[in-house]
Amino acid sequence: MAQTYVDDSVALHTDFYELNMIYTYWKKKNHLNKAVFEVYYRNNPFGMGYTIFAGLERVVQYIQKLSFSETDISYLRETKEFPEDFLTYLKEWKFTGTLRAFKEGEVAFANEPLIQVEGPIADCQLIETALLNIVNFQTLIATKASQIKTAAGDDPILEFGARRAQEFDASLWGARATYIGGCDATSNTRAGKIFGIPTSGTHAHALVQAYRNEYHAFKSYAETHKDCVFLVDTYHTLDSGVPNAIKVADEMGDKINFLGVRLDSGDLSYLSKRVRRQLDEAGYPEAKIYVSNDLNAETILNLKMQGAKIDVWGVGTKMITAFDQPALGGVYKIVAVEGDDQKMYPTLKLTSNASKITTPGKKQVWRIRSYNGVKPEGDYVALYDERPDKQDELFMFHPQYTYINKTLKDFSARPLLQDIIVDGTLVYELPTLEEIKAYAKKSLKEQWEEHTRLLNPEPYPVDLSQKLFDSKVETIQLFKETAKDTSAIHSKF
Amino acid sequence: MAQTYVDDSVALHTDFYELNMIYTYWKKKNHLNKAVFEVYYRNNPFGMGYTIFAGLERVVQYIQKLSFSETDISYLRETKEFPEDFLTYLKEWKFTGTLRAFKEGEVAFANEPLIQVEGPIADCQLIETALLNIVNFQTLIATKASQIKTAAGDDPILEFGARRAQEFDASLWGARATYIGGCDATSNTRAGKIFGIPTSGTHAHALVQAYRNEYHAFKSYAETHKDCVFLVDTYHTLDSGVPNAIKVADEMGDKINFLGVRLDSGDLSYLSKRVRRQLDEAGYPEAKIYVSNDLNAETILNLKMQGAKIDVWGVGTKMITAFDQPALGGVYKIVAVEGDDQKMYPTLKLTSNASKITTPGKKQVWRIRSYNGVKPEGDYVALYDERPDKQDELFMFHPQYTYINKTLKDFSARPLLQDIIVDGTLVYELPTLEEIKAYAKKSLKEQWEEHTRLLNPEPYPVDLSQKLFDSKVETIQLFKETAKDTSAIHSKF
Repeated sequence: MAQTYVDDSVALHTDFYELNMIYTYWKKKNHLNKAVFEVYYRNNPFGMGYTIFAGLERVVQYIQKLSFSETDISYLRETKEFPEDFLTYLKEWKFTGTLRAFKEGEVAFANEPLIQVEGPIADCQLIETALLNIVNFQTLIATKASQIKTAAGDDPILEFGARRAQEFDASLWGARATYIGGCDATSNTRAGKIFGIPTSGTHAHALVQAYRNEYHAFKSYAETHKDCVFLVDTYHTLDSGVPNAIKVADEMGDKINFLGVRLDSGDLSYLSKRVRRQLDEAGYPEAKIYVSNDLNAETILNLKMQGAKIDVWGVGTKMITAFDQPALGGVYKIVAVEGDDQKMYPTLKLTSNASKITTPGKKQVWRIRSYNGVKPEGDYVALYDERPDKQDELFMFHPQYTYINKTLKDFSARPLLQDIIVDGTLVYELPTLEEIKAYAKKSLKEQWEEHTRLLNPEPYPVDLSQKLFDSKVETIQLFKETAKDTSAIHSKF
Repeated sequence: MAQTYVDDSVALHTDFYELNMIYTYWKKKNHLNKAVFEVYYRNNPFGMGYTIFAGLERVVQYIQKLSFSETDISYLRETKEFPEDFLTYLKEWKFTGTLRAFKEGEVAFANEPLIQVEGPIADCQLIETALLNIVNFQTLIATKASQIKTAAGDDPILEFGARRAQEFDASLWGARATYIGGCDATSNTRAGKIFGIPTSGTHAHALVQAYRNEYHAFKSYAETHKDCVFLVDTYHTLDSGVPNAIKVADEMGDKINFLGVRLDSGDLSYLSKRVRRQLDEAGYPEAKIYVSNDLNAETILNLKMQGAKIDVWGVGTKMITAFDQPALGGVYKIVAVEGDDQKMYPTLKLTSNASKITTPGKKQVWRIRSYNGVKPEGDYVALYDERPDKQDELFMFHPQYTYINKTLKDFSARPLLQDIIVDGTLVYELPTLEEIKAYAKKSLKEQWEEHTRLLNPEPYPVDLSQKLFDSKVETIQLFKETAKDTSAIHSKF
């Protein structure tokens, strides 16, 4: 069997081809040439019209601790064919690039750069895999939570997915993402500890089964906890579970806070109405009904339509895995590269699939508002040096159907890509999780409902500036003409 | 904002209700009472007839390092209402239970226990969430890889999913699971380092875009690497990519191993046939065609049916997330509990959904073979103390349709649940990853093809012993009669 090494570093948490490319750049002395890469995704998930950007804090943590350990070097030395001087370069390597990103919690849209990495091409290349691994998942899950929260309205959502998450990190960082997206608490105690998320949960069927008597189990729980939510479906919800819960609540009186009961199986609409009546008639109109059992946005909407008497929603598998679309599909594409003349040149990927042609050039994304309204008019993707905020009027047009356009005269423009790490140094004060959560709520609320409704949302405009559009057309033309010509050396490498 | 703590322990990687239940057991002095819990799932995923059990090594690692850190205790003290003596108990707590499990790589089926945990009820309860979090994911992904490998036949499969995996652990442990399930290599270099999995990958579009000239990029790569697979679809696969690859191969001659080209977009069937001809005509019949681009078992089957000339399959998103069913749904259910008389009593969960009624009692799973054939006849789930291997004949019947049955006279029975950890001590020698991979292949190969084919497999029999069946019926009856009776104290707690 192949020798294995201690897992003491995340520097090799990268697709092996990144290292192969870095070796080529290094050997050819191009590794310090500057490049610009951008992260974006092509389609909003779940039929929705937006996403909630998440993952930035984890990206910053990752980059800050990024360096090759002794065991990383040993592994490469013993299994790969890199020469020793390249391994020395890796050993001494530090990230010296610049990273710009949306704020965590920002409402984001397809086909706009959410993260931009600028720096030595080797540095940009190494971090691709981990960045996408983090941001694709966390953005997906924050968005899924936003969808479920939208369906649930003002009702609390509890995140219960740890046992069905795709391994530990997905449970942990997923819990954080669901909190950003709108959940109120998580069952994952470790997420509570390290992120400060409220944790919730009372007892499982196992407690009732361990005592082999429901009344006895509830009573034992009530004698040992002030706050009580009893899980009532281990034997028979209506005939046994709720009556036993009420009996214990009656017996304990003020000694407990009888917060309510939880249903985890059966016809949740029917049962919740019957249980509501049982609780009301017993004198517990304040006791709440918690439900769980494979819930998603659609079942919540339908249960509400049926008039189910449900107060709190525990959501597991369908949220923490984004069950109906478990990957966002974000990509990381090089958009500009430095020549030996130290100028930056746009670069792109052509393809027969027009929607997959990248938009070359280093960009900024501006959120545009009319002054006569508080709602955004659209996002305006421009070359990085353009200043639409200084312009008197702004011409916005659809990037494919260019005859769909408008001219704004009275508007404001806010740049969404912010400096996070500059030349390897963190320059951004990471907000607290509560601030991120509040920001996500505000960012979503200020959108037109037409763009954020769950079914068939009206597409939000993500337009290109005229300069960026012209540059794209020109660059496509250049590469189409010269791609086959092996003597045409565009690169100043 | 809530205070947060250092992430230095996984003891709190557990649903908070586990701690609430443990507190009740502890306060009531029941926490040392023995219990038996079992992990199983109810349906094989992806319309398949089996799974490949995976995750055991990670479960063992988790349990071995499981203890509450200072910060865990501080967090609980400052945010929860547990008394100090309970926190002292947690601080001193060690796992002292027994864990039995299938071997990693074993072919497994729905409704049979894959893991069994026996020990103090508090110990059993604490590890539920993490066990499911690990085994649900790793088994799912090993099974998904097995599906894809089955579709691809003898062709190599490369795991390329890191950027779309659900966070770091899913990429890392997922790569390991895909290797067990049948993949040949991964792109995740860290997985290569710590598990010894072969890593693969040459270059991305970014290399071509960085050099802004395809020929120049290929030539630079070839001048710095012996083994070359050129990615040929950055500009135009047939007019530019393949001709440039051939030109570089011609120029470099013996200085490189021209292993082939990779296609990552477009009509893979059409392109692969055209590219095959281009390579053959240029004198490179040995050069292979690698493809990637959202592949799954179905696209591979279809491409093969169309006669696509593809040699190696790079599979990403659809495998690493198990895109078409991203959760296995495994559960962890208490099946027996110790009374104060130190006898074990079966316990169960009733429900109106008959398939969700648990099967009470501590069990063993036996894989049954007729001596006149090498293929398994079915799995036989019996009470733990039964010894079907010592019986002269074995009566096997369907657990729901009991009139479907057979009597075997000449058979062998092999127990599948093996002692892994006994009273807190590891007694099992963990196999190497290569051994696990080989075992999975053997375990799958010995099955009847009728059970392992991808579409509409014939269900493999997972039968209950007569004693287990009778015990289940009896226990259901007991609980149905007495569930509503609050005076009937079954528990010897």
